Amino acid sequence: VSTEAFVISLSCPNRAGIVAAVSTYLFEHRCNILDAQQFDDQSTGHFFMRVVFDRLPDAPQASEIDAGFAPIRAQFGMKQTLRALAERRKIIVAVSKFDHCLADILYRQRIGEIPVEIVGIIANYPRETYSGLDLGAIPFHHLPVSKETKLEQEAAFWATVQGSGAELVVLARYMQVLSDGLAAKLAGRCINIHHSFLPSFKGAAPYNQAHKRGVKLIGATAHYVTAQLDEGPIIAQDVEHISHRDTPEDLIRKGRDIERRVLARALRAHLENRVFLNDSKTVVFG
Amino acid sequence: VSTEAFVISLSCPNRAGIVAAVSTYLFEHRCNILDAQQFDDQSTGHFFMRVVFDRLPDAPQASEIDAGFAPIRAQFGMKQTLRALAERRKIIVAVSKFDHCLADILYRQRIGEIPVEIVGIIANYPRETYSGLDLGAIPFHHLPVSKETKLEQEAAFWATVQGSGAELVVLARYMQVLSDGLAAKLAGRCINIHHSFLPSFKGAAPYNQAHKRGVKLIGATAHYVTAQLDEGPIIAQDVEHISHRDTPEDLIRKGRDIERRVLARALRAHLENRVFLNDSKTVVFG
Amino acid sequence: VSTEAFVISLSCPNRAGIVAAVSTYLFEHRCNILDAQQFDDQSTGHFFMRVVFDRLPDAPQASEIDAGFAPIRAQFGMKQTLRALAERRKIIVAVSKFDHCLADILYRQRIGEIPVEIVGIIANYPRETYSGLDLGAIPFHHLPVSKETKLEQEAAFWATVQGSGAELVVLARYMQVLSDGLAAKLAGRCINIHHSFLPSFKGAAPYNQAHKRGVKLIGATAHYVTAQLDEGPIIAQDVEHISHRDTPEDLIRKGRDIERRVLARALRAHLENRVFLNDSKTVVFG
Amino acid sequence: VSTEAFVISLSCPNRAGIVAAVSTYLFEHRCNILDAQQFDDQSTGHFFMRVVFDRLPDAPQASEIDAGFAPIRAQFGMKQTLRALAERRKIIVAVSKFDHCLADILYRQRIGEIPVEIVGIIANYPRETYSGLDLGAIPFHHLPVSKETKLEQEAAFWATVQGSGAELVVLARYMQVLSDGLAAKLAGRCINIHHSFLPSFKGAAPYNQAHKRGVKLIGATAHYVTAQLDEGPIIAQDVEHISHRDTPEDLIRKGRDIERRVLARALRAHLENRVFLNDSKTVVFG
Repeated sequence: VSTEAFVISLSCPNRAGIVAAVSTYLFEHRCNILDAQQFDDQSTGHFFMRVVFDRLPDAPQASEIDAGFAPIRAQFGMKQTLRALAERRKIIVAVSKFDHCLADILYRQRIGEIPVEIVGIIANYPRETYSGLDLGAIPFHHLPVSKETKLEQEAAFWATVQGSGAELVVLARYMQVLSDGLAAKLAGRCINIHHSFLPSFKGAAPYNQAHKRGVKLIGATAHYVTAQLDEGPIIAQDVEHISHRDTPEDLIRKGRDIERRVLARALRAHLENRVFLNDSKTVVFG
Repeated sequence: VSTEAFVISLSCPNRAGIVAAVSTYLFEHRCNILDAQQFDDQSTGHFFMRVVFDRLPDAPQASEIDAGFAPIRAQFGMKQTLRALAERRKIIVAVSKFDHCLADILYRQRIGEIPVEIVGIIANYPRETYSGLDLGAIPFHHLPVSKETKLEQEAAFWATVQGSGAELVVLARYMQVLSDGLAAKLAGRCINIHHSFLPSFKGAAPYNQAHKRGVKLIGATAHYVTAQLDEGPIIAQDVEHISHRDTPEDLIRKGRDIERRVLARALRAHLENRVFLNDSKTVVFG
Repeated sequence: VSTEAFVISLSCPNRAGIVAAVSTYLFEHRCNILDAQQFDDQSTGHFFMRVVFDRLPDAPQASEIDAGFAPIRAQFGMKQTLRALAERRKIIVAVSKFDHCLADILYRQRIGEIPVEIVGIIANYPRETYSGLDLGAIPFHHLPVSKETKLEQEAAFWATVQGSGAELVVLARYMQVLSDGLAAKLAGRCINIHHSFLPSFKGAAPYNQAHKRGVKLIGATAHYVTAQLDEGPIIAQDVEHISHRDTPEDLIRKGRDIERRVLARALRAHLENRVFLNDSKTVVFG
Repeated sequence: VSTEAFVISLSCPNRAGIVAAVSTYLFEHRCNILDAQQFDDQSTGHFFMRVVFDRLPDAPQASEIDAGFAPIRAQFGMKQTLRALAERRKIIVAVSKFDHCLADILYRQRIGEIPVEIVGIIANYPRETYSGLDLGAIPFHHLPVSKETKLEQEAAFWATVQGSGAELVVLARYMQVLSDGLAAKLAGRCINIHHSFLPSFKGAAPYNQAHKRGVKLIGATAHYVTAQLDEGPIIAQDVEHISHRDTPEDLIRKGRDIERRVLARALRAHLENRVFLNDSKTVVFG
């Protein structure tokens, strides 16, 4: 896809004429549709659409195209955004002791695989914990937490996010349950990786739970954070086969690979504006 | 999806305005788009679109909608069809000694999973070979074949297809290489299941080839038939892990499951008008 | 593997010398080990072993080999069996309205893929429900069930099993919760296919639960039946990716393929004596 | 598995009594078998066995156990090794421009997932190419290569391997075809990751080949290096589904994840002595 490409994401109550209105508008403003997907959820009546387009040489500026879209937005009651696909998004990564997901995100960022600027790392362990990683000039925020300090720590967490200009927070094995208050502030802009195939094995030590139950597959789940722990809308999941030979330690090792893969997939989908909230679920255009 | 739903499939050279023209036409003819996908192949300049819609109570008949589409078809140089999604398509299934794919298609047809009417079975083995299958009243054509009789047999094959009114021929482990002449007549309307992960292990006895090479995965490939054996546009593929313990017989057994699954997936995609020919490849909307 | 092959399965408390004792015994009785696997569960102290062997020309009869094994059995406190691998086992299949798993088992039996003799079908729907299947001469037992008649029906179920000589009962989408009493009688000799990826979505209508939760994978689980519904030791599981486009009906359709595949895999593993109970889990040699 | 565990790997012509001899020897030398797998390849007559054991408190030293094994080795014509499972093996990693596999190996080594000491990196690009990676004190050998200098470069490559004491060379996307001479010297001790699902798409630019052919799955293959390029014994393979939407660049991106996963799996299997050469194939105990 051209580096000059733009993406429109929109959702609204379903009714006839939405696609016609959007595509006619783009055509009349000298835009060429490269890719489009839509979904009409007949059980909820919600409509979702994602359009990737580039501008013909005589097209208006993207900002004008966006501004001119206002009447359509109003007519259909749309939530709608227009972004340049190549725009680098500012993200903060929160991490605890295990850094395999952080290492993976850093690597993908470095080779240009995901268009992000990492504007901060929040960790409840000190910086030397991650001495094997090249954190470069990324601001590092050591925010240790205990039951007693959780309130203050979360206030600092939120202040850090706000101060950074990040539009997305990635809990890359952060291992702390967010309070309802912080979860509410981050709603829709915070992705967590849970190390189980939800809704199985919610809560602590899911690999131990999986080993105890004797399941034959383990998995990981990337989801948006909500106040209900482990209940947020699921973005991506994957699994791998295991056997009776696998100890809990083997599951943890195998799980690392699944976790980083699933989180990267969810992160990419989010950054490409492929993910839409649909009540307690998501729409993810492939 | 409503049983009253229709599907428009179209392809044409890419240019701006196609989506706007199609969606505006449908909107103005009182149709509601339920699902739409499009793809602009930037390497070939081909554009592909599939739209599922239902008619509002005051909409014209489907035949009128189709007829009125002619100017758009002409304007963009489209190949285009409009079908009722629930319409049962007539198919012929060709089979050789091994009947696992035939058994699977019969079962899926019987429980209503695939909307087809099986208007004939062509086999190079006699009917009693399939005595464990309930063929019901499906016309059975025993067309044995040898090198000497291949010319006549293929003529009979083609006459059978024509006489049956079938719009699709499924080679469900038919195990005969079609001549260029017959392949040409069936181009675009004949799906074959090849028991390897093409392009690996073309030709005969692919499971023996796979065993000899020591691969760790085996697969199957459903593709449209072309004059070039094993080179037709691929519709669906899948694989399973194997190990050194698997004998060629184990691969054949495991392969049966992959073959019937892949063939069913390709057949369903074709019947739902999700598959488009794109030179030597396919576009398959998910 | 030779059709003359035998399989020894054994489990006992772990201690040094088991493998030496077993393999030396077989060597001294003119047997050639073709395949052997063992597992020492260090968390429970249980030891499991499966040995496939064939007899050299001057070896004793299998029955003598088995009889002579008694001292080793006693020495290590083993549960142990010796079977001919090719021996056809008698099974009963129980089914409710949906017959895709039954159809699949019948097909695999017919082509010789699984070495079983189906000595009965128990159904809570009348025989005409399965008119598309060729049940041949298999005794068909219509045992309808309601809350009021459950006690009598289960007695008839059990009498049917006993009368048939079946050593294994396969609940092939039987859709009835067995009472504790019947479950106890069938413990270790009854395999159920559950249409979810346990422990997610226990209980009724798992595909509806999965759709509601918005998971991105659905699965099926084959397990031994225990008094705790959906809690029995898991033998095999598998999953497939789904998307927001999949309706509950799509999940049911996709689920059929997973269910029959997983049940067939578990059934084959059981029949080849690859599965061992290990408290609430299983050991399954690959 | 205990950090005090040892592994015996052996292969020899098949005949009766091998398992009895090995297990009796271990039992008599006060060793406890934790895991054992064997395979009798009936098509080649080769026998393979891997035994993991720990020593009881009064057992001889491992070196004595190994030395005492000589008569059994001689009796059966075995190739046999005995290693401590936790022993860190010395490896050299060779890399070209793309460093995702190198980054992955470095990370797994750092967190202790694979028991290796990386005693050198050989690269045909200068060190600054990998500035995002923390190479620590690992000796870095910049060995640029061109057609004209290939002979000298390979001599330097081989001298570097010999000088390092490495017992394994990992071609982590090294992208150079080794000459027959170098390949011969590295036979059985050099693993390559090929970025296709071999035997499909041998040779250069496999992702472009895959895109052109329109396959629906791409893969990667880890194999031992032999003089026949892309023909060495396969250790591990995996694939992912792709669609018509994936450009060659998308395939390269998706391929990175498959490549590092497959290479890591093969490397782990090799290091745990699970892999045996079996003519042009491998035996890999799971």
